[in-house]
Amino acid sequence: MTRWPTLIENPVEAHGARSISVLDQTLLPAHAQMRVLSTLDEVAEAICTMRVRGAPLIGVTAAYGVALALEADASDASLHHALTVLAATRPTAVNLHWALARMARVLAKSALVRRRLAAWEEARLIKDADCAANLAIGQHGAPLLRAASRRHGGPIPLQIMTHCNAGRLATADHGTALAPIYALHAQGVPVHVWVSETRPRNQGWLTAWELAEAGVAHTLIADNAAGLLLQQGRVDAVIVGADRIAANGDVANKVGTYLKALAARAAGVPFYVAAPRSTVDAACAHGAAIPIEVRSSAELGAPGALMTPVHNPAFDITPASLIDALITECGVCQPGDLAQSIEPV
Amino acid sequence: MTRWPTLIENPVEAHGARSISVLDQTLLPAHAQMRVLSTLDEVAEAICTMRVRGAPLIGVTAAYGVALALEADASDASLHHALTVLAATRPTAVNLHWALARMARVLAKSALVRRRLAAWEEARLIKDADCAANLAIGQHGAPLLRAASRRHGGPIPLQIMTHCNAGRLATADHGTALAPIYALHAQGVPVHVWVSETRPRNQGWLTAWELAEAGVAHTLIADNAAGLLLQQGRVDAVIVGADRIAANGDVANKVGTYLKALAARAAGVPFYVAAPRSTVDAACAHGAAIPIEVRSSAELGAPGALMTPVHNPAFDITPASLIDALITECGVCQPGDLAQSIEPV
Repeated sequence: MTRWPTLIENPVEAHGARSISVLDQTLLPAHAQMRVLSTLDEVAEAICTMRVRGAPLIGVTAAYGVALALEADASDASLHHALTVLAATRPTAVNLHWALARMARVLAKSALVRRRLAAWEEARLIKDADCAANLAIGQHGAPLLRAASRRHGGPIPLQIMTHCNAGRLATADHGTALAPIYALHAQGVPVHVWVSETRPRNQGWLTAWELAEAGVAHTLIADNAAGLLLQQGRVDAVIVGADRIAANGDVANKVGTYLKALAARAAGVPFYVAAPRSTVDAACAHGAAIPIEVRSSAELGAPGALMTPVHNPAFDITPASLIDALITECGVCQPGDLAQSIEPV
Repeated sequence: MTRWPTLIENPVEAHGARSISVLDQTLLPAHAQMRVLSTLDEVAEAICTMRVRGAPLIGVTAAYGVALALEADASDASLHHALTVLAATRPTAVNLHWALARMARVLAKSALVRRRLAAWEEARLIKDADCAANLAIGQHGAPLLRAASRRHGGPIPLQIMTHCNAGRLATADHGTALAPIYALHAQGVPVHVWVSETRPRNQGWLTAWELAEAGVAHTLIADNAAGLLLQQGRVDAVIVGADRIAANGDVANKVGTYLKALAARAAGVPFYVAAPRSTVDAACAHGAAIPIEVRSSAELGAPGALMTPVHNPAFDITPASLIDALITECGVCQPGDLAQSIEPV
């Protein structure tokens, strides 16, 4: 079975043209198909329309978008244009802005003749760092999840709930929220994952798809069913990713995350957030300052006959007080101790 | 514009055959179409497949189902069979069992020769009582919602959130949770309703459809967005219906209700439950004793390519502690005072 990568650099063509290919996630799970991106505009379109999605992967893809833009024109004006276009694609995930700022910093120091090469090198470093960070998240998070089992010694698998897709499809590889689950699975610990469909875009289908690929037991539920399952004691821990973490530990993540955090707290079930340090926005004091992307009404797919107005915010804010721990590549910390515990990246 | 009724008795045919017609809610909002039901099996099918749905309307429809069964055969055996078949259609909504028990009680006292007529009369009484109860719920609930406005005197409409459909489509007429909203609208009070799509069956579309019909402003949201809107202070009160209310005030209602109750409490927004007394199950001590219907995996509509296991509970339990008031045709009471406040019906 092909294990489809989320993003690859294509071999340089005979005449020197460069491109990347991304797994088009809008076609999953029905079709797994790579899409070639060779221009800035193609990368921006792929991010806006969520062909590539997931905060870490958006950051990686945007870095490659800068490299592709410089292929056409390596001038300062072209670089500035690329950074502006890519920054405007999605407002909430801060990894995007982090990756662009890192590209800008490195390329500002790079001589114009070396700029193209430097851009590809830096994008590659960002991608490799994402893989490494996620592996580390898996190692730090696995014992935390294992300790959450309230059925010590029982034959029942560890019951983990997640939301949206914060798996390998949301990253260069390995995932964030799913990384500890993959680590446990690799250790032979029986794990079962409750996967919320994650309306309106159904990213839960992506999570189900990659868990199936990895052979991890899972069950799809309607988002609405999460409260009941927690109430019924059928969940040992909840783990999600993040699109932006404020300095005080408040977390912006896919809309619906906050409801799961409330239900987990009410049930006495630990609620964990797993994300690379690049998701932390030290300049953002608290969750209320995080911009919430409002996406198209059409995403809800209400029948045309209804002609009903729709409001479609894509993220919500989970206050630090509902989060039992943040898991980054540096280790595990309390959301309130974020500033002390995590060096900026 | 036709105002489609939810259930009507059809005129008796020349050869004496009787039938009812129900609005087929599985076709809404694309098509409004009445469906003729003339046998017990047709009624049972319509309830199982949710052509008719909503706890009060299920009760009314089941009563007519008994009458239709007796048209074919008015014997004790036939009555017993009808009661058994109808009781097995849906497990959670108690109005169904209440209506069947009422039919059984009345028909047991009725001489065999009068039994057919008595069944139609009693079904009609149940239907009329539902209409009257819902109008009363509207009168009791309207001032409660109005008082919930935290924008006293402001020009902004009262912002009410609901879940699923507990409107006129869920009842013989007027609705339960929507009855106070219709009462306010009739009084000229500007009201705007946040309508959750209510996965997996999208009964929010039914709510949007009937609010549009009534000219009440509303906006459709993904279920996942409810927490954010409450957190952002964009909701003055949440009001929902109920499928069964335990003696201690715990409420079974459409899955996802509990998550809204948690988010309302966290935001300091009142959470109300509106239902006729027939929804109260005095024999059920608390929510954990209420059977939760698990429906078909197919309702989630996951792509065939996923082949993923699905768990699809249709209801959840909102504990009495999260409910600020219950609104019945008798008035408003605290869920904990249910036993003292509400005479059994």
